[in-house]
Amino acid sequence: MTQPMEELRARLAEIEDLRAAAAVLDWDQNTKMPPRGAPARAEALATLHSIAHARFSAEETGRLLERARESLDGADADCDDARLVVVTERRYEKARRVPTELATELARAASLGQQAWKQARAQDDFALFAPYLERNIELARRYVACFEGFGGFECAYDALLDDYDPGMRTTEVERLFGELRDALVPLIGELAEREVDDAVLHERVAVERQRELVEEVLALQGFDPEGWRLDDAVHPFATGLGAGDVRITTRWEEGYFPMALFGAMHECGHGLYEDGIAPELRRTPLGQVDSLSLHESQSRLWENIVGRGRAFAEVLAPRVARRLLDGRALEPETLFRAVNRVRPSFIRVEADEATYGLHVVLRFELEQELIEGRLPVSELPQAWNERVRSYLGLEVQRDCDGVLQDVHWSAGLLGYFPTYALGNMVAAQLWARARRDLPDVEQQIASGELGGLREWLREHIHRHGSKYETGELLQRVVGGPIRTEPFAQYLSDKLGAAYGVQLPDRR
Amino acid sequence: MTQPMEELRARLAEIEDLRAAAAVLDWDQNTKMPPRGAPARAEALATLHSIAHARFSAEETGRLLERARESLDGADADCDDARLVVVTERRYEKARRVPTELATELARAASLGQQAWKQARAQDDFALFAPYLERNIELARRYVACFEGFGGFECAYDALLDDYDPGMRTTEVERLFGELRDALVPLIGELAEREVDDAVLHERVAVERQRELVEEVLALQGFDPEGWRLDDAVHPFATGLGAGDVRITTRWEEGYFPMALFGAMHECGHGLYEDGIAPELRRTPLGQVDSLSLHESQSRLWENIVGRGRAFAEVLAPRVARRLLDGRALEPETLFRAVNRVRPSFIRVEADEATYGLHVVLRFELEQELIEGRLPVSELPQAWNERVRSYLGLEVQRDCDGVLQDVHWSAGLLGYFPTYALGNMVAAQLWARARRDLPDVEQQIASGELGGLREWLREHIHRHGSKYETGELLQRVVGGPIRTEPFAQYLSDKLGAAYGVQLPDRR
Repeated sequence: MTQPMEELRARLAEIEDLRAAAAVLDWDQNTKMPPRGAPARAEALATLHSIAHARFSAEETGRLLERARESLDGADADCDDARLVVVTERRYEKARRVPTELATELARAASLGQQAWKQARAQDDFALFAPYLERNIELARRYVACFEGFGGFECAYDALLDDYDPGMRTTEVERLFGELRDALVPLIGELAEREVDDAVLHERVAVERQRELVEEVLALQGFDPEGWRLDDAVHPFATGLGAGDVRITTRWEEGYFPMALFGAMHECGHGLYEDGIAPELRRTPLGQVDSLSLHESQSRLWENIVGRGRAFAEVLAPRVARRLLDGRALEPETLFRAVNRVRPSFIRVEADEATYGLHVVLRFELEQELIEGRLPVSELPQAWNERVRSYLGLEVQRDCDGVLQDVHWSAGLLGYFPTYALGNMVAAQLWARARRDLPDVEQQIASGELGGLREWLREHIHRHGSKYETGELLQRVVGGPIRTEPFAQYLSDKLGAAYGVQLPDRR
Repeated sequence: MTQPMEELRARLAEIEDLRAAAAVLDWDQNTKMPPRGAPARAEALATLHSIAHARFSAEETGRLLERARESLDGADADCDDARLVVVTERRYEKARRVPTELATELARAASLGQQAWKQARAQDDFALFAPYLERNIELARRYVACFEGFGGFECAYDALLDDYDPGMRTTEVERLFGELRDALVPLIGELAEREVDDAVLHERVAVERQRELVEEVLALQGFDPEGWRLDDAVHPFATGLGAGDVRITTRWEEGYFPMALFGAMHECGHGLYEDGIAPELRRTPLGQVDSLSLHESQSRLWENIVGRGRAFAEVLAPRVARRLLDGRALEPETLFRAVNRVRPSFIRVEADEATYGLHVVLRFELEQELIEGRLPVSELPQAWNERVRSYLGLEVQRDCDGVLQDVHWSAGLLGYFPTYALGNMVAAQLWARARRDLPDVEQQIASGELGGLREWLREHIHRHGSKYETGELLQRVVGGPIRTEPFAQYLSDKLGAAYGVQLPDRR
């Protein structure tokens, strides 16, 4: 490594350490911290983000970047060092536009907002949360304003979206979401009225027994207690706190075991991504995953394509029978059908794969209206409920089943939601490719052997960290950009099989 | 507040935030972190300490301190601002002598050392730990060397001791420990051979049932779930992570419930100190307690003077009977005697109050030999075992019951141990004073009402944070310096009552 590269890496490593420390504080706040600790925690997080932002956006970083770039003259544009400089330069250009005071305030408001949201949600009282959301939106607008004239951003929402999927644009999401809606609506229309017996999912099972099942499944998936933790959280999440330290969370419902099981598989999918980042990228900006669409492709692939797939039902059914049903028989086919029941519902994270996309479209639209000032926060619950009625045909009765269900807005994460639906699309594209590369992958999965798929994903996706934007990585792996069709086709195939009906061919 | 004071406070608040963040990372490392996370955590902690140290010891801090001091001309020397400047100036003078590179290395080595110690202890293998201890001692020597010529330090150990009890000196500890030994040895000689029936303490009780008892007792003591947490730890500790966030830990032994119970009461005593610091001192250097002798006086007071006292036996006995003994009768007097059995043993934190002091004296002596280079690490286990034989008459069979039992040296905490025995002395002095101020405090305690004592401690000790050094605060509360006699007299009175014998009057 050249001297300028070493100096750049040393500076970035310190900033990554601050980020890792903030991630520990965040994890703790959402799993362990007693409620009265919230104000002090918000200050500590604000300080960490403030120092990290000031150091990163300082001119010294720019100088080190420039010297590092010069020192790489002639190097392979695809090598770690070259990618590190390119990715970091873009982040630097963005960070420089954001005053440290605003970055600090965003962190403080996010921390306070989450705590307020927890209370508002527990008490089903949107009014408790509204001032914090207003503050977050006001700050998001100030943030967006920093990017006036920034290359490639065509609207306010672009500046937000780019933080969660660098290079992705609002118009592209609109186009993809239009196709998605066109694919989903007829599918839902075809299936939502059909009866599926999913009574087995609603039997009461004590959390401690569910936990044994979840731990067994996670172990198959790649959870390693030496380097991972599983905890409870109101809103499940996964986070990587540095090499060898992956934290995932889930939540438990005694009358609905899929909540914890598939939630844990989902977060474990995220965790495998964090765990699989190449050691040599750690403590650099490439050692965290910038594209949440890619990140979500991993969680959704494990949760839905594997977890709710026909092959894995062979693994799950006997284990559910033994651990949760006192040994009563459960046919894999029965379980497969039950966990793939299509039925509009209130909660995004509990939605089936067909209706899920509509939950995301709804949030994407509302976020744009909020950020552009077309929708005041006071009218948000009403707007939410109207859209749920229109998209899902349901009447929201309580805000905690509606506008208060997700943590994101409380944490200032505006522009994040689209990556969930984009992740579904990417997951289907990767799955199609993996099945070509690993012709017996479904037999492997049916026998409980998940290592083949995991290693394929590690090789093609995980290890690269943030070396490539979503489109670049997809180009390398599947030879093209994000597309809706593979996801639509996957859904048609799978739900057709589950329901025993012929659904439209989307090829 | 004057402008210079405000500027000083703003700078110090940021540094305290970094310290609070490091405390979260430390807590997590010792309660939750998966083992493979250790190296990355060490880096993150090193960076936090490095940045905090660099900011604190920067000349800008000195300038702000000077301007703040000038702005306070004529102010009450006892007001928060004046004390903040005095206490911070002394810390600043010390910090300036320590290069940031060394501060960083101390933090990194402490983090790695703790992880190595955990493994060495679990495997009862000192050799796994030895290189980390050697590193910590080497760094401690470099640290000590920074204070050559620093006012008032007369020997290497003074520089270490001062970090855990500012103003305390090795010669003073030697004098007090000499008196302590003179008081303890005949007491132990008198009592150690007498039979005490403590079979009730060794009944097997599942952890979950013990937990109910512990939670009930902690609630009496002042544990509030809205602002506190109780977790498990290999080596129990307490930490304040900022206002409204107190973390205590304990460990459980199914065949010996006092381990968890009195351990939790001990840590809760620390926690009450952290919880009771005045809000206006938070996010300043006065908002953390510098004197661990004072800190330990609180934990030992609650654990031993209250927890193992005759009055509280009235509260404990029926609860132990109901929760742990399936309702079998337990006389308070029987419990009182059992928990005050004097018997030399291997583990410091399990030692009775009479032999405890000898465990500390032993460590104090070994630490001085280690730091002065008179004892190589390779010979430490042998030296330890010899001293245990000489002081306690016991043969150490396994290093995990000997030199590997305490976390401190692994975390670079050399000079810390004396504060445990000093804390016992201070606790007895405070207790004597509290009984004068609250004549019915024992009746209150016997009825389970611990609020009177807690509030007395909050008023006289806790709220002051680090405003005063140990000697200054004791002067205010008991009218004099640390003394051995009150502790010796307390032990004579209590153990005499427990054993039904006449012990020497130490007045």
